[in-house]
Amino acid sequence: MIGVFDSGVGGLTVVKEIFKYLPEYQIIYFGDTARLPYGTKGEKFVKKYSAKITDWLIKKGAKIIIVACNTSSAWAADSLKKEFSAHGGSASGGKNVPIFEMITPAIKEAKRVSRNRKIGIIGTPGTIKSGVYEKKLSQLNNGFRIFSKDCPLFVPLVEEGWVEGGVTEEIAREYLKPIKQKNIDALILGCTHYPLLKNVIVKIMGGKVKIVNPAESLIKEVKLFLKNNPKIESQLKKGNKHQFFFSDTPYNFQKISHLCFKRKIKIKVQDPF
Amino acid sequence: MIGVFDSGVGGLTVVKEIFKYLPEYQIIYFGDTARLPYGTKGEKFVKKYSAKITDWLIKKGAKIIIVACNTSSAWAADSLKKEFSAHGGSASGGKNVPIFEMITPAIKEAKRVSRNRKIGIIGTPGTIKSGVYEKKLSQLNNGFRIFSKDCPLFVPLVEEGWVEGGVTEEIAREYLKPIKQKNIDALILGCTHYPLLKNVIVKIMGGKVKIVNPAESLIKEVKLFLKNNPKIESQLKKGNKHQFFFSDTPYNFQKISHLCFKRKIKIKVQDPF
Repeated sequence: MIGVFDSGVGGLTVVKEIFKYLPEYQIIYFGDTARLPYGTKGEKFVKKYSAKITDWLIKKGAKIIIVACNTSSAWAADSLKKEFSAHGGSASGGKNVPIFEMITPAIKEAKRVSRNRKIGIIGTPGTIKSGVYEKKLSQLNNGFRIFSKDCPLFVPLVEEGWVEGGVTEEIAREYLKPIKQKNIDALILGCTHYPLLKNVIVKIMGGKVKIVNPAESLIKEVKLFLKNNPKIESQLKKGNKHQFFFSDTPYNFQKISHLCFKRKIKIKVQDPF
Repeated sequence: MIGVFDSGVGGLTVVKEIFKYLPEYQIIYFGDTARLPYGTKGEKFVKKYSAKITDWLIKKGAKIIIVACNTSSAWAADSLKKEFSAHGGSASGGKNVPIFEMITPAIKEAKRVSRNRKIGIIGTPGTIKSGVYEKKLSQLNNGFRIFSKDCPLFVPLVEEGWVEGGVTEEIAREYLKPIKQKNIDALILGCTHYPLLKNVIVKIMGGKVKIVNPAESLIKEVKLFLKNNPKIESQLKKGNKHQFFFSDTPYNFQKISHLCFKRKIKIKVQDPF
């Protein structure tokens, strides 16, 4: 199966892209609602639970892992790769599970679409504070400038289902003002909830700014990876018996599920940790 | 010491009232930031961690416990009383630590100030869904009607420091509309964060609606209890060496601390669970 995890329901926007680009594979999803939000938590905490969840998903049969949470991607992806994927080698018990994270594919895409080399990034306080986008960008290439802004109210707005309307636009206008003034021409939505606010964000940023949805960039990359790695691809179960686990009852779940998939989804609530 | 706990920083509005009404006693505070918010969590989860925290505070020297979290008060206070206070008797190892919760004192106060017997209550989804205010009110007296409304965006607004201004007023207007229409004349602020939004709430509800701050009602009750129970009172340490523990780095802590106390506060970050 394709293992996907997030701190809560936000990762469903990643599942949406899997349904679109990789509809044939079975998904096992874990949302750590008992401990959400990760965005305001510390680095050690995020690393610890990202590793526990990855281990649990692998034991449940996941053959690849998608870290569908920007905060985990920012703080835990490197240590997860060391512990669970090829690079860990025999020292990690011979485990060889590919780990995919949200940051790198989004930066590649933003670089591709930006003309003036000014890229904006919005996310939770944890993601922005980590400075991970700046770090990864400087590893990949020079000459790009990145302007970041945290938007702490965007997640609660989405979870309330307020993805449009006056209040949401006013909050978005306030948050986006400083990066709009920098004349960016590409904007990375650095939190899994934010694609659900895309219409409002486009309205405020204007049509000339390309919006990069990391979920879409990531799943396109996974698709390419599976094409190039038929041995791993052949281990993935096919079919639509998807499983959605949450460590606590998710708040307003059916509203979010409807925003993502236009339908209800069956979930299981259990906290294995 | 006086032990105080909350899911995060909201309980500081209760500490504010302790500083005002019981300034002579030492406080030990625990904010469960690693697992916040409780308001959207399940009942079992809230009971489990409320008990763990109470036990930890007692081991640290707390002689009375103030449950400064409305969700915990709603779901866990009764079981905490059974486990830790006099009623538990020898079955609970002879423990005899008085437990105070936020709900009952606020209801008594609302009953006292309401003339038309229509009381409003606002809180997190968890508190409102629990229906605990309705239950407690029906135990205390008849003839009162209670109208409740959850306000999920109020906590993130306060934690962002947006306690006034256009956006906050617009959100408050939207949330308060249904209970304002019911012509209530007393409104209970059923979440520890909400007293910091009092000015906006008063502006929208109008001057005739009495605002009940459960923190204030509760601490007045604790003061009376200590007066009537000199043996317990004598066990409480005096002085101002207060201790503030958080299970994870609290988001925007100094902003909230400044909103409450007009000054910074020294904290320790450790997760004992």
